[in-house]
Amino acid sequence: MDSIIKKICDGDIRSASRLIRDIEDKLPAAKTKIKKLYAHTGKSFIIGITGAPGAGKSTLADALITELRNRNKTIGVLAVDPTSPFTGGAILGDRIRMQRHAEDSGVFIRSLATRGALGGLSLAAGNAIHVMEAMGKDIIIVETVGIGQQEIDIVNHAHSVVVVLVPGMGDEIQTMKAGLMEIADVFVINKANRAGAKQLQAELTSMLNLSPKAADGWKPPIVMIGDALKPLTFAEDTVQLAQKIEEHHSYLQKSGKLTERMHRKAMAEIKDALSSCLMEPVMHSLIESGELEKLSEKIKNRKSDPYSVAEEITEKFFQKQEKR
Amino acid sequence: MDSIIKKICDGDIRSASRLIRDIEDKLPAAKTKIKKLYAHTGKSFIIGITGAPGAGKSTLADALITELRNRNKTIGVLAVDPTSPFTGGAILGDRIRMQRHAEDSGVFIRSLATRGALGGLSLAAGNAIHVMEAMGKDIIIVETVGIGQQEIDIVNHAHSVVVVLVPGMGDEIQTMKAGLMEIADVFVINKANRAGAKQLQAELTSMLNLSPKAADGWKPPIVMIGDALKPLTFAEDTVQLAQKIEEHHSYLQKSGKLTERMHRKAMAEIKDALSSCLMEPVMHSLIESGELEKLSEKIKNRKSDPYSVAEEITEKFFQKQEKR
Repeated sequence: MDSIIKKICDGDIRSASRLIRDIEDKLPAAKTKIKKLYAHTGKSFIIGITGAPGAGKSTLADALITELRNRNKTIGVLAVDPTSPFTGGAILGDRIRMQRHAEDSGVFIRSLATRGALGGLSLAAGNAIHVMEAMGKDIIIVETVGIGQQEIDIVNHAHSVVVVLVPGMGDEIQTMKAGLMEIADVFVINKANRAGAKQLQAELTSMLNLSPKAADGWKPPIVMIGDALKPLTFAEDTVQLAQKIEEHHSYLQKSGKLTERMHRKAMAEIKDALSSCLMEPVMHSLIESGELEKLSEKIKNRKSDPYSVAEEITEKFFQKQEKR
Repeated sequence: MDSIIKKICDGDIRSASRLIRDIEDKLPAAKTKIKKLYAHTGKSFIIGITGAPGAGKSTLADALITELRNRNKTIGVLAVDPTSPFTGGAILGDRIRMQRHAEDSGVFIRSLATRGALGGLSLAAGNAIHVMEAMGKDIIIVETVGIGQQEIDIVNHAHSVVVVLVPGMGDEIQTMKAGLMEIADVFVINKANRAGAKQLQAELTSMLNLSPKAADGWKPPIVMIGDALKPLTFAEDTVQLAQKIEEHHSYLQKSGKLTERMHRKAMAEIKDALSSCLMEPVMHSLIESGELEKLSEKIKNRKSDPYSVAEEITEKFFQKQEKR
């Protein structure tokens, strides 16, 4: 076995951190390592946490770490930050809070920011999770801010998805529920001490009763989590959450749905890798040759259109391959 | 000229609506029509509006329509909804409000939802904007919920990007400012009557002073917009916003930055179209042949890894092309 692969499988933090950084930086070497690492992955249980900004996901993840450590689980945490594609990620105050677990050798926390690439964040997140799996972490928590397509691609790497809502975040949050309904295995109503929590719970409950998922054997529970500043009840609420996630895990195993999800996950990973395998060499060659500049100019001046140009490039690139 | 293309260029609402629906549904015929339409696009000024959920973007867009109509501009509005990828888009209450402009023949409003495809939403949004451009709209407003990579891809179709913030939306909103700083041409602090508005303004101002953009000739102004329930001052605030957007438009024209942005936009459109041209036939053939299922099973069982599979597929697909 490659020495770095061996080190990662032995849980070496430095080697794992470096590979995650290389994944983030899209170094070609990272790809080779992931290929070698892959056989050692697939044994961790992966929990996704998502929800709107300000919903308190990181505080929740932090509390969940504490609770899962009490249960003697080793944990990997990947905080994915799709919000600052240009700056390469901001330092998130909330996540720094999680770093208090950094002293604990049973907890490995890393964050991942996008580099503004072609949907590459989901691919990178999947690979960073694989690194933590190879390290032998029992549970991996993937936390992401937001509820767009990209965030959904990211939480789809998880086996169990926790969607965090808070009362009183306006109309738009309400309309998002339809989309959230499809991905959530467990709902959290956070800051449940606030006005509107009961109403949100009632609304969610009636939506869940109408959802086709309910007939499927698993009706997503709603966990009410109170004020994080009241440590006692907050800790109790977090125990509840950990319990519901564990129940979902058991349900997945018993019903055969875990295998189903792993199959779907494999399919998504193929898509991600394919997109990168197809697009990267083509974009690279277009940029290197200066052709992208010329073609953009042509389109800007309406001498052509993006589809015709894309078709030409596709054809040309295939021909180039033929000559090899 | 194709009769449908001609109708769209004549401003026919029914033809335009149908093409936008076909774009959303990814009908191959839509692509052919966009190619023909493309020569008639590129003359509208495109305004992007984005921000966190609940920031009041739609109410703002609605007010902006009224103000721009007072200035005798014809307007297209595209509300992009990346939040419900599975259900194909929810009906958004706020956007229904905008429909009061539907009686006005100078305003054309459509919404677009993702169909859970490979980053196809940005491509679809770009094309829907082109339809409105071909219709001859002076100004097109693209509104999207969120601040992830995908939303940024969407607002990058705009020439002028308005980022809407509200006071008191938690820590995460604050950390997002770094990312927002890069895309915003005009900031709005909405619901500026709320506590914390002045502080947010002060914070933003100091961040803007440090931003490299300031040296670039355009320092994004911050427009404070008060309570939407106080029609008189709200309308005044909206006039302010329209004014700042117009100033930015003038700046873009005078400085040559408009050409620069259009070039960058063309580049992004090539990428979007390329991704679809490369991925779609490959994915289609993998699904049709049942190969995707088999490969996913292989990966699930760790008999291979996504990268090796993707490389095999890429190669195989290129070979298939050679035989033609």
